[in-house]
Amino acid sequence: MADTTHGATDALQIDFAKGDGLIPVIAQDADDGMVLMLGYMNEESYKKTLALGEMVYWSRSRGKLWHKGETSGHVQKVIELLIDCDEDTIVARVQQIGGAACHRGYRSCFYRRIHNDGSAEIISDTVFDPNDVYNNGGTH
Amino acid sequence: MADTTHGATDALQIDFAKGDGLIPVIAQDADDGMVLMLGYMNEESYKKTLALGEMVYWSRSRGKLWHKGETSGHVQKVIELLIDCDEDTIVARVQQIGGAACHRGYRSCFYRRIHNDGSAEIISDTVFDPNDVYNNGGTH
Repeated sequence: MADTTHGATDALQIDFAKGDGLIPVIAQDADDGMVLMLGYMNEESYKKTLALGEMVYWSRSRGKLWHKGETSGHVQKVIELLIDCDEDTIVARVQQIGGAACHRGYRSCFYRRIHNDGSAEIISDTVFDPNDVYNNGGTH
Repeated sequence: MADTTHGATDALQIDFAKGDGLIPVIAQDADDGMVLMLGYMNEESYKKTLALGEMVYWSRSRGKLWHKGETSGHVQKVIELLIDCDEDTIVARVQQIGGAACHRGYRSCFYRRIHNDGSAEIISDTVFDPNDVYNNGGTH
């Protein structure tokens, strides 16, 4: 069995195969722990993230690498990356430039609370107006 | 366009179809914001979670509903559920009974930091010895 001691270091083999080449990546504000968004990475985007020190996802909707913030300037600077026990999910502790991760202008994509009746309530204010930041008004 | 005002409430239609019936669910400690684990839910486990007030996932490895902690007693009590802009990912803010979410005995499954050289370092101590909690020593 692997060494389970605090401080022990071992080789890492991220399991991209399990999710057909993609792993989920949770972006969390490194300052206060707010979960900002969930994105996906393939191996290439993971390596680019390590090299660049900024979050590079794989956009499933556009089918290509997505250096978040490359057009808006609202990049996510990597503070640290954490890997889970199964080596198939990453938590990225980041500094979100511009203060908002969500393309709808909220700080976090998780800006709505689910009620038991199946409705959802907005629990945050917007940080910016998406129409002012994105010319196409749609992509992150 | 939908009302984007803080406090606005609208109907919610979670997109289970995008992920072949499963959505990723981020479990986060409601007290201090630590990300504890990432699991998956199908529609049935989502409804059971709402009804029970405790986290019920879909276990991909075992192919069945997974009421976390049902054998160990280390359930996750739901404090609130948040939904993202795309309605395909949930953040569950929970109270983790027993203090550890990871089947390896750590508080969080994300107990290792990734180094740029491809290694991973354990950055936490274990809360319990998995051999004392699980007879089979393997499942969550």
